[in-house]
Amino acid sequence: MTDLAPLAPDTLPRLAEVSAATVSMQLIKRGIRRSAMRGPVPLDPGQGRLVGEAFTLRFIPAREDVATRESYGAAGSIRDAIEAMPADRVMVIDARGETAAATLGDLLLARLKVRGCLGIVSDGPVRDVAGIRQVGLPVFCAGAAAPPSIAALYFVGWEQPVGCGGVAVFPGDVIVADEDGAVVVPRALADEIAADAPEQERFERFALERIQQGAPVKGTYPPDEATLAAYEAWRAAEDAEE
Amino acid sequence: MTDLAPLAPDTLPRLAEVSAATVSMQLIKRGIRRSAMRGPVPLDPGQGRLVGEAFTLRFIPAREDVATRESYGAAGSIRDAIEAMPADRVMVIDARGETAAATLGDLLLARLKVRGCLGIVSDGPVRDVAGIRQVGLPVFCAGAAAPPSIAALYFVGWEQPVGCGGVAVFPGDVIVADEDGAVVVPRALADEIAADAPEQERFERFALERIQQGAPVKGTYPPDEATLAAYEAWRAAEDAEE
Amino acid sequence: MTDLAPLAPDTLPRLAEVSAATVSMQLIKRGIRRSAMRGPVPLDPGQGRLVGEAFTLRFIPAREDVATRESYGAAGSIRDAIEAMPADRVMVIDARGETAAATLGDLLLARLKVRGCLGIVSDGPVRDVAGIRQVGLPVFCAGAAAPPSIAALYFVGWEQPVGCGGVAVFPGDVIVADEDGAVVVPRALADEIAADAPEQERFERFALERIQQGAPVKGTYPPDEATLAAYEAWRAAEDAEE
Amino acid sequence: MTDLAPLAPDTLPRLAEVSAATVSMQLIKRGIRRSAMRGPVPLDPGQGRLVGEAFTLRFIPAREDVATRESYGAAGSIRDAIEAMPADRVMVIDARGETAAATLGDLLLARLKVRGCLGIVSDGPVRDVAGIRQVGLPVFCAGAAAPPSIAALYFVGWEQPVGCGGVAVFPGDVIVADEDGAVVVPRALADEIAADAPEQERFERFALERIQQGAPVKGTYPPDEATLAAYEAWRAAEDAEE
Amino acid sequence: MTDLAPLAPDTLPRLAEVSAATVSMQLIKRGIRRSAMRGPVPLDPGQGRLVGEAFTLRFIPAREDVATRESYGAAGSIRDAIEAMPADRVMVIDARGETAAATLGDLLLARLKVRGCLGIVSDGPVRDVAGIRQVGLPVFCAGAAAPPSIAALYFVGWEQPVGCGGVAVFPGDVIVADEDGAVVVPRALADEIAADAPEQERFERFALERIQQGAPVKGTYPPDEATLAAYEAWRAAEDAEE
Amino acid sequence: MTDLAPLAPDTLPRLAEVSAATVSMQLIKRGIRRSAMRGPVPLDPGQGRLVGEAFTLRFIPAREDVATRESYGAAGSIRDAIEAMPADRVMVIDARGETAAATLGDLLLARLKVRGCLGIVSDGPVRDVAGIRQVGLPVFCAGAAAPPSIAALYFVGWEQPVGCGGVAVFPGDVIVADEDGAVVVPRALADEIAADAPEQERFERFALERIQQGAPVKGTYPPDEATLAAYEAWRAAEDAEE
Repeated sequence: MTDLAPLAPDTLPRLAEVSAATVSMQLIKRGIRRSAMRGPVPLDPGQGRLVGEAFTLRFIPAREDVATRESYGAAGSIRDAIEAMPADRVMVIDARGETAAATLGDLLLARLKVRGCLGIVSDGPVRDVAGIRQVGLPVFCAGAAAPPSIAALYFVGWEQPVGCGGVAVFPGDVIVADEDGAVVVPRALADEIAADAPEQERFERFALERIQQGAPVKGTYPPDEATLAAYEAWRAAEDAEE
Repeated sequence: MTDLAPLAPDTLPRLAEVSAATVSMQLIKRGIRRSAMRGPVPLDPGQGRLVGEAFTLRFIPAREDVATRESYGAAGSIRDAIEAMPADRVMVIDARGETAAATLGDLLLARLKVRGCLGIVSDGPVRDVAGIRQVGLPVFCAGAAAPPSIAALYFVGWEQPVGCGGVAVFPGDVIVADEDGAVVVPRALADEIAADAPEQERFERFALERIQQGAPVKGTYPPDEATLAAYEAWRAAEDAEE
Repeated sequence: MTDLAPLAPDTLPRLAEVSAATVSMQLIKRGIRRSAMRGPVPLDPGQGRLVGEAFTLRFIPAREDVATRESYGAAGSIRDAIEAMPADRVMVIDARGETAAATLGDLLLARLKVRGCLGIVSDGPVRDVAGIRQVGLPVFCAGAAAPPSIAALYFVGWEQPVGCGGVAVFPGDVIVADEDGAVVVPRALADEIAADAPEQERFERFALERIQQGAPVKGTYPPDEATLAAYEAWRAAEDAEE
Repeated sequence: MTDLAPLAPDTLPRLAEVSAATVSMQLIKRGIRRSAMRGPVPLDPGQGRLVGEAFTLRFIPAREDVATRESYGAAGSIRDAIEAMPADRVMVIDARGETAAATLGDLLLARLKVRGCLGIVSDGPVRDVAGIRQVGLPVFCAGAAAPPSIAALYFVGWEQPVGCGGVAVFPGDVIVADEDGAVVVPRALADEIAADAPEQERFERFALERIQQGAPVKGTYPPDEATLAAYEAWRAAEDAEE
Repeated sequence: MTDLAPLAPDTLPRLAEVSAATVSMQLIKRGIRRSAMRGPVPLDPGQGRLVGEAFTLRFIPAREDVATRESYGAAGSIRDAIEAMPADRVMVIDARGETAAATLGDLLLARLKVRGCLGIVSDGPVRDVAGIRQVGLPVFCAGAAAPPSIAALYFVGWEQPVGCGGVAVFPGDVIVADEDGAVVVPRALADEIAADAPEQERFERFALERIQQGAPVKGTYPPDEATLAAYEAWRAAEDAEE
Repeated sequence: MTDLAPLAPDTLPRLAEVSAATVSMQLIKRGIRRSAMRGPVPLDPGQGRLVGEAFTLRFIPAREDVATRESYGAAGSIRDAIEAMPADRVMVIDARGETAAATLGDLLLARLKVRGCLGIVSDGPVRDVAGIRQVGLPVFCAGAAAPPSIAALYFVGWEQPVGCGGVAVFPGDVIVADEDGAVVVPRALADEIAADAPEQERFERFALERIQQGAPVKGTYPPDEATLAAYEAWRAAEDAEE
């Protein structure tokens, strides 16, 4: 990921404040309809949001001659991937949607936390759920499964382009995940989306107020001219308050 | 829905007191086996029951030339459907089981609440889950998804017969939804089922007591003659107490 | 099940202390990769673990001429199966993964509790969720559905080999189910797995400590010689403490 | 199957002349909507129809400790089932819709032919397709797969009630399979359906003629009074011709 | 469909000469990625192409109180839809991907042929396959099923926007179906695609020749400048020959 | 693939003579149960077998910003993969089971033929079926689809480990595909399986003869001592004949 163009300094902080739903709408505006993963959901309701640059892992289906317990200690295993991952990354795991085995358990999660990982997104399950909760990293996954990865999957590499939950993820893309699920922001679009998304959310805050006060959605969202004018006034007033 | 025969005055209040499981059994008694939707589950565990007449919405798969952001403001959009819906209805959304996009978010939910909508049943996901919780209407759906409807669906009309979760729903059918899921009561059967269901539940309350006291299920439920006699006595005693 | 070789006296108590994830790993060590069911998840987050010998039930798809309400009272119904089940068993239900009907509701659960049943594992849904919670047995299933079994299934027998969640279950196999899901231990392997599993968990407890203190996973789990030596010391110290 | 009431002598010959589509309609008339299997299709386009009494086989998911190559030679294997099957039966295999392994290959098919088996219906695949074609029995299945059964399934018994393609099949039920798929006739309904089905087909032959001559379907099928009168005449004329 | 803008006179004849694959590429060029149905395949390998304007039918899931045999003769049935359909249309059936019942059999097909229907596209199965073959209309569908529609579906209307095989279809859209499947051309794009597609196919004919003569695909398709020049020459030569 | 140990000279010729079913059984004997792909079937019934070393291609889900028509001509496209492939390889395409787009059409197939490719195995569809038939290479795939790859997939590289039809494939593994489907032989096992498989088939030829002459399968396959003795004699006789 060393060759990637750097993100603007406030891109990640801004994206950390906006919802996956907002980001998804910003992406559709730019012609990207396939950005929201199907499969990963929050492991725990209260675990919080997860925003950061993707570090990708890739699995293929298991075959009994290679997906052995010995493979866990071999060169090129997921253990090496964890050590290769810089701090402050979101680990994105392409588990091919396989639900018969878990790619991570509490021991690997504990190490990931020590290594500064922000959290996990996977289209497969995790294991040792009780232990994972104690580690305390946000995990978006397809529930839990008792078997270790080798029961159904084999690890083949990291920092490659992958698919996760039906969406393409390239190393360095930005993940925004919350209760609505995980959305992938192409790295090249991250700066402009981070710039525009807060304004969208501000307008939606205004629109929600109006709707709760009795305005119909039509004319309010998307706004007609009168709503836009009212918004300008509302925004000016709010800015003045600060 | 103007031409529909009115329901008996106590039909909805009675159905509000009985479970989806009871209603499903009453329907099977009348030859209706396909009444329980697959897909919609409670968005929040404690959100409560949802009982009322259906107001239907219909989506088809999205196509990029029509499912645009502009379509949200166009005539015939879901915004018009919301305004056309009378108060005290359950909005039933045929989302074709599509999980890649959400048909409703917090802004539309807020307006629905203002309009007197009782709650939502959809075989697709919703978005802005955090905001939807604040609105506080009961929502039965297929989880959450960040993308807005146009990412995968296109709205085509309201108050038509639809399918939802694999079940036929006609405008004016009665929805009974609780933790066991959403069941559709054909309007023509609603009065008689509302009349019979409370008695079924009363008997089941009795049967549960007996079973907890050590009676085997066989002979108790369904009841043999001795159980029926005991039930008559129990019921008479309970009636006398009141 | 009368002809089955008895389990060692401490097999069930030991398995009651270890996780489904640990058991799954022990099974893979012995060449069994297909042991974890797909489908059954805990009905309630806090319901606790379920460990015991399986008593199996078998359903086939419903046909309208046999799957009638009358069949509930007939000889050979699920009511007879419940009475035939010895105490301290886990009821394992082969519902063929059918989600359109529930095989059990609160009345049957209440009787099962009276009969000393330990809990339920099914690859289909249950009904009367509110009532089931009050009964208080641990239930691992595929969510909830309002319709009774005859809406989609027909009961055909008990204590036969079955499939559940894609895994073979023979009467007398041992079930270990927790938040990670339900795992089936072939009866012939139960004693040796119960003997080995606690040691695996003890080592993992040690490994977790080391990882939280900064050790990389590589060399720690699976352990290299240095880790093994450290573990021996740690174990000796812990034993001395007691 | 020895206790089953015998079928009327012309039941099977009559059913051999009518289509699966006709039989399905006759079943719906009698309240049976779940009679057509999903999964089994003709292995070869020109293989012809298959009509006869069901002899059932049952598989569960494989487990590595029991689904071994040695199990093929053990007591209670599919080899014993084949020898236990009377001549002139249709073998119906409950393969649980598993597509990762085949329950039958050319050697078993060859033996089935020698034993007088009429043909095969399975909701899983077969193997050795080239060899099976040479045997020449009609086979309705879910395509082909190279692995033998033990790769994914384990045989557990015969002549039990089973599910196949989502439909209940009891030993002695009658199978009618053609290009439209395989339909199960409950044994108790076989005589009356065999009595009525030919007349339905005769009327449909008449209706098709009328439609090809320009009659609209409405009024022709289902018939109005004029069509019924015309049919009576047509039938009388046809009878006279013979 | 009476208000629809007419197609250019040579639009349908031109589309009749180009492949579904070509049309799909032309649509992607114009931003339409969701145009190819999943589900409908040719019923018979040699049945030929199907090109024409869509006339849509819509089904919802069956419910036992309305999906009766009597409904076949009622007002608003599929029989009325057939009579309402103008000649030279492609009937597109939204069967919701349901595979448990067939929406059409040989009698309806026979009438459709008399009425001048060009062929059928459905995301569900048909029945009476043998009879349908004799009628001789091209049918793109999801295989065959013995049961009539009411076993699983209920007809609710025609000439509405529908979904078929995961794609939106509006009355008057143009269907292009061949061995590669069925593609929907939005009516508003039909003229320009019909204008451009033949040229695309001509170039591909040239490119195939070049590749068979040893040219690598790179530089040939998509073409570089040298290839474009060669193509101009080739085209001029071909035009001169005619 | 340059570092791979060479196969024994007669490994590929021997595997070219044995069936996928035989190879699958040989793999199970060696502990490999996951070797047969689910998804790829012969595109044409009479296309013949396909045996050779795998050259792998990998796709991920499409994203609108990268999966453009321009990407077809870019560095690292599938066009480069084709040129990088040595002659006499089987191209194995990991299309992630995606059925909404085709990874190959007639132009690429034509080039593959010129380049000496033996045939194609993919868990997704192909397009231009009519043109592909004229090229004449054996193709095992998931049917046909009109859209080009970019409608749903994005090409990311070649000669990496991939999954195809649920099975791991490493560059240099050996593919054996026939009417029963495609089986993957781990390269390290190819020599010994090629050595043993013909003998298995010879014995099966003998067993089939015996069964057709009236021997039960039990005792014949797997063979008991008498059968083994008879086989020795049969083999000796056959050897003598040559």
